[in-house]
Amino acid sequence: MLEETLFALANGYLGTRGTMEEGAVADHQSCEGTYLNGVYHSEKITYGEVAYGYASHNQKMQQVPNGKVLKLKLDDQTINLADAMEATRWLDFRTATLHRQMRWQSGSGRQLSVNTSRFASLTHPNLLCLRMEILAENFSGDIELSALLDAGYRFSPNKDDPRVGVLSLDDSLALYQQHAGDSDAWMLHQVKDGEFKIASVSILNSTVAPRHISQITHEKQVGQHWLLPLKQGESVIVEKYICYQHSKELTFETLLDEAQQKVQEAKRSGWDALHSQHQQAADAFWQNADVQIDGDPALQQGIRFNLLHLFMSIGKDGHSNMGAKGLTGHGYDGHYFWDTEIYILSVMTATNPELAKRCLEYRYRTLEGARQRARQMSHSQGALYPWRTIGGDECSAFFPAGTAQYHINAAIAHALRSYYAATADWQFMQEMGAEMLFETARLWLSLGHFNARRDGQFCIDGVTGPDEYTAIVSNNFYTNAMAKAHLQFAVQMAAKFRHQDLTAYEQLCVRLSLTESEISIWEQAAEKMYLPFDETLRIHAQDDSFLDKQPWDFANTPPDKYPLLLHFHPLVIYRHQVLKQADVVLAMYLLDDTFDQAQKARNLAYYEPLTTHDSTLSSCIHSIEFAETGDYQRAYEFFHDTVRMDIDNRHGNTEYGVHTACMAGSWMSIVHGFAGVRMRPDGLTVNPHLPDHWQGYTFNLQYQGRQIQIKVSKDKVSYLLKDGESLSLQQGTQQVHLNKGQWLNVSWGNL
Amino acid sequence: MLEETLFALANGYLGTRGTMEEGAVADHQSCEGTYLNGVYHSEKITYGEVAYGYASHNQKMQQVPNGKVLKLKLDDQTINLADAMEATRWLDFRTATLHRQMRWQSGSGRQLSVNTSRFASLTHPNLLCLRMEILAENFSGDIELSALLDAGYRFSPNKDDPRVGVLSLDDSLALYQQHAGDSDAWMLHQVKDGEFKIASVSILNSTVAPRHISQITHEKQVGQHWLLPLKQGESVIVEKYICYQHSKELTFETLLDEAQQKVQEAKRSGWDALHSQHQQAADAFWQNADVQIDGDPALQQGIRFNLLHLFMSIGKDGHSNMGAKGLTGHGYDGHYFWDTEIYILSVMTATNPELAKRCLEYRYRTLEGARQRARQMSHSQGALYPWRTIGGDECSAFFPAGTAQYHINAAIAHALRSYYAATADWQFMQEMGAEMLFETARLWLSLGHFNARRDGQFCIDGVTGPDEYTAIVSNNFYTNAMAKAHLQFAVQMAAKFRHQDLTAYEQLCVRLSLTESEISIWEQAAEKMYLPFDETLRIHAQDDSFLDKQPWDFANTPPDKYPLLLHFHPLVIYRHQVLKQADVVLAMYLLDDTFDQAQKARNLAYYEPLTTHDSTLSSCIHSIEFAETGDYQRAYEFFHDTVRMDIDNRHGNTEYGVHTACMAGSWMSIVHGFAGVRMRPDGLTVNPHLPDHWQGYTFNLQYQGRQIQIKVSKDKVSYLLKDGESLSLQQGTQQVHLNKGQWLNVSWGNL
Repeated sequence: MLEETLFALANGYLGTRGTMEEGAVADHQSCEGTYLNGVYHSEKITYGEVAYGYASHNQKMQQVPNGKVLKLKLDDQTINLADAMEATRWLDFRTATLHRQMRWQSGSGRQLSVNTSRFASLTHPNLLCLRMEILAENFSGDIELSALLDAGYRFSPNKDDPRVGVLSLDDSLALYQQHAGDSDAWMLHQVKDGEFKIASVSILNSTVAPRHISQITHEKQVGQHWLLPLKQGESVIVEKYICYQHSKELTFETLLDEAQQKVQEAKRSGWDALHSQHQQAADAFWQNADVQIDGDPALQQGIRFNLLHLFMSIGKDGHSNMGAKGLTGHGYDGHYFWDTEIYILSVMTATNPELAKRCLEYRYRTLEGARQRARQMSHSQGALYPWRTIGGDECSAFFPAGTAQYHINAAIAHALRSYYAATADWQFMQEMGAEMLFETARLWLSLGHFNARRDGQFCIDGVTGPDEYTAIVSNNFYTNAMAKAHLQFAVQMAAKFRHQDLTAYEQLCVRLSLTESEISIWEQAAEKMYLPFDETLRIHAQDDSFLDKQPWDFANTPPDKYPLLLHFHPLVIYRHQVLKQADVVLAMYLLDDTFDQAQKARNLAYYEPLTTHDSTLSSCIHSIEFAETGDYQRAYEFFHDTVRMDIDNRHGNTEYGVHTACMAGSWMSIVHGFAGVRMRPDGLTVNPHLPDHWQGYTFNLQYQGRQIQIKVSKDKVSYLLKDGESLSLQQGTQQVHLNKGQWLNVSWGNL
Repeated sequence: MLEETLFALANGYLGTRGTMEEGAVADHQSCEGTYLNGVYHSEKITYGEVAYGYASHNQKMQQVPNGKVLKLKLDDQTINLADAMEATRWLDFRTATLHRQMRWQSGSGRQLSVNTSRFASLTHPNLLCLRMEILAENFSGDIELSALLDAGYRFSPNKDDPRVGVLSLDDSLALYQQHAGDSDAWMLHQVKDGEFKIASVSILNSTVAPRHISQITHEKQVGQHWLLPLKQGESVIVEKYICYQHSKELTFETLLDEAQQKVQEAKRSGWDALHSQHQQAADAFWQNADVQIDGDPALQQGIRFNLLHLFMSIGKDGHSNMGAKGLTGHGYDGHYFWDTEIYILSVMTATNPELAKRCLEYRYRTLEGARQRARQMSHSQGALYPWRTIGGDECSAFFPAGTAQYHINAAIAHALRSYYAATADWQFMQEMGAEMLFETARLWLSLGHFNARRDGQFCIDGVTGPDEYTAIVSNNFYTNAMAKAHLQFAVQMAAKFRHQDLTAYEQLCVRLSLTESEISIWEQAAEKMYLPFDETLRIHAQDDSFLDKQPWDFANTPPDKYPLLLHFHPLVIYRHQVLKQADVVLAMYLLDDTFDQAQKARNLAYYEPLTTHDSTLSSCIHSIEFAETGDYQRAYEFFHDTVRMDIDNRHGNTEYGVHTACMAGSWMSIVHGFAGVRMRPDGLTVNPHLPDHWQGYTFNLQYQGRQIQIKVSKDKVSYLLKDGESLSLQQGTQQVHLNKGQWLNVSWGNL
């Protein structure tokens, strides 16, 4: 199951796990899964005790029929991996293509080699492409091929782990119609408890004509059975193209028609052309995003693996986003969290800002739902984004670690701020960004209050911060600090908007019933924001109550009791000083210029020993902050924990999908941590460090229309402005001026 | 449905709602229900998101076949209340018997009078007794009678109210065998998802021999159909006795045998003898518990109605307890809460201490489960009682307002303290009380900690107090104060035990691994208990965070938005200063001698305006505390709100059962509030006040083996020691000495 996740493929719209064409080996647990991003079914949430305003339905990422099935039979024996003489599989990072080579021998000694490849097209998002090359090594004769669309797959997890969703393909799709032809097959499904219709269409092609064809039409499977004549020493190539398409509006007939056209076009184009287009798109991504680590192949593999999965899974159509597990598994039901804005978009704004924009567009498209949610939560104005969702509705069934995480609003504002700093894309801000920013900002004012008992400072009570090992507290430092930054940015953007286009600004204000006096209250709230600080410890307090709690008894917590959430009741965890993940420390990263180095070091020294890092979102942030405060040894350790999290299955649950935020975090650890890159309103800054273990490293940035490559090596830092206008940036205290096409080396002595 | 609750009958073991013998009138919603106390089925609790240590199953009070069914047909017309010419129903408080008189006329003008009576025998707890007197007024002829045991009834509530359980008789009972004879019928059921077997047996008798008999055996109904000859002007009397019996251990055959013997004995005894025994038991209760209010019939009715229901519903066998709704409805699934110890037992220790003891015995019998729960909650020692349960397992599906209410342990300790003060029953303390007391006391030590940041005071973090409009806070005043009293009492009882019976004490200590040094830490924790106090407001703070929150906007909360819990998300409620019910104020009542009057008045003045009294447990406590602080006007208003809560259905949900804690609260308001009665270790004190609206009031107490009647009137307070040894008590500052059988009048001028 682990490999099924690692070898998953996706293109942002469709994702499919790395299961075998012939299906699972009988005695191995396997989790089949093909997913459509942004498509979901709704399940009523059952509560032991329900209360007003609880999320009513869970939106689960929609699974669709498995189109990968290509089963071979020789001498009446099914050919599968378990019986192979030799077999190897690899994911080609550069081309986002999965390959398998296998040699196999029948009982009678007939030998075959079977090479398969597949990719989810980066240029044709509805298309999954498969290719199988069959070579008869020592015989001539017929081989049987069954190609299926399979809607009958199920998965029952054997773990009682709240983080694992349950697969329910059967329960979520109602068959409308299906068909099997000689080379094509299709299924039309209505998503139960939802408005989506789905068409799944496949077409089969081969380099030799089948000697016999029969159609397969079972209750949950359609496809064809081909008898293919093999000649010793000659390859037969089979191609299969599967198109998945969904719609709320179209009729089934139109939907089918469109999908059929797409597979026909794919068949006409053929594998080579399709793969070539796909490869160009992958090339472009690597051009913008690749990171090279010289001197450590394992880390090199790790970072590229992570970047590839981020790129493959991220929603690219403005109607979808990035699930916590991407499109590699059904963990967390495929929900989108703040992970997107705080982690994924940190990478994307700096490497592929267009993709960051698409994710922000998705948030804009669900703004109306966030407004309605705010009303449910008794806020007469503004918008409250859901803690977890697909379609835009709150899907969190445990509000203390769900809806209570109001900082989701600040996360979206942070992403807008980062995106704008990285791109200066005013058009987006004017068309969508400002409205989201203002609507989320105004929520803080009805959530918090100017507290007379604390000198009129602005306090926010009854929230949960990023650290879910503490819940429903007053003045969570992270939340307050992020709200402050959110309000400040909203005030700045309002001023800019007013200045840039008064008419449009005034129209927006009228539409939102937004007045200048409200904006001035935002300014006051930001200015008077209460940021808990303990004068004795000289650290920021995680919240009003945290520092008064008992420290967790780490000495008497054996390793098998982690993660704590699987071994202790929430109340036990809540009443102790123990963190699941970075909280104050995360604020230090996101709002890095509001802390001095000494303060960061003191906060880190206090909080890190209390942190279990039970969340995979934690290590990377600690890596960055240790790097920022000059403890490169610890920075490196935490980075190491991050970069191969999934490949090495360090948290033991990659089976259910990769950890996309952690993957993004590994990039952040390098670029924001070791290289100290920050994109601020006043420009790009770099503070590079080269970890001892490395010869050097190279990474790429997109910055306000420019492509920049930065190479950090033992004796110098080298900059190449690959494209775009000349630029001055700051390296430490030094000004660096870049001109297009010229390498600039800055030698340095501070290593 | 309201009347079905108000006219419910019970005897502590079986309870049955006041539905009609002929069933519900077609177009009225009706909720049939016959319940066995202490018997339950288990349902797996489904969570949207589950976590470690969550309650896994809900134990639901078991419903059993309805034995009340006696349907009459004349001229092929069913006789029911809807068509009656005249009808009246009344509950005879004195005898705990329900009566109905009805006159009815058939389409052809034949007139009948039908008088029914029923009671749940207070002397034969398995027995429900029905009597029907049929008088043909203007004709002679046959009448059809159908007598049934009906296991087919269902109820689907039409409200989406978390406080309402769902009836599921069908789903919870599996039929083992059933039988209908000429006059008897029985059903044997296995409780699904539980170990209980249940026998329901009925027998029918009449003063005239039936002219024809047929048996009724449907899928979920057994009984008989009798044709009874009526003569004009002559009554026919029908008696029906139903026996409900359960067992985990017995075979169905033995269980049936026992139940059959009981109905046969009942039939032999006959109505008059059975009712006479029943009445004697009721008399004895009233002798001990009656309260007379001179000059206000509505309040008089209210308080007696309340006392009767308390007496009828309370578990009397040491294996059961008192549901929040008694045995009058399935609200809250019949669960036992702290309501028993804080409210119900306040009444019972002072009027029927034997019943208080039975309820405490029940807690002792579930102590092992509480120990196991403590282990689940990571406490290596001690016991944690469940927030809501029947069989002893935690059934709360929302831990922030469930398991987090650790004060349940203190409530049980409080009841032990009260029981011991009222009875001086050392034998019980030694046999059961001390063990419960010690095991619950030691939990505080692993829950809380001596906090160096607060001068080493003992702090308790991450709990919820009685006010469920605030959850998971640090240093809830009520919890800390009650824990302190709990620990103090435990230390005292340990010393006394050591002194009284060193051997037994040491045996217990060995069994509990309890050392003197542990007890000395209890003493330190009690002494150093942190009790939050705000120096500026000069009030006790509800918890560390409460006073810093925004006050609730009462001015903009229209009446239809109450109770808040049905109209606002918990997070909205949690982040405001708003109370569901007394919290600090409740501590003032329970620990009244640890506050001075001025402090009580200040606390009341602060908290009462923030209190919605959305819980029916609130008004009575406020009545008592306003009385204690001399604001008799407000005391009277809150009392008024309490005493007719159910009769007048003031919270609009009495349909689903009475509010037993509130009922108890009305007695507490009179006896502890207006009369100022307290039973302290150093004796009985009385501080009587006569509300302006009343001529006088009289109540009864049991105190350390004595029966005392106290009559408060305009010019004097009169005491009668009805039984027991002479006694000195304190009225205000005056010593009053009572001798058996002599009225003692104390005149007073302080009204």
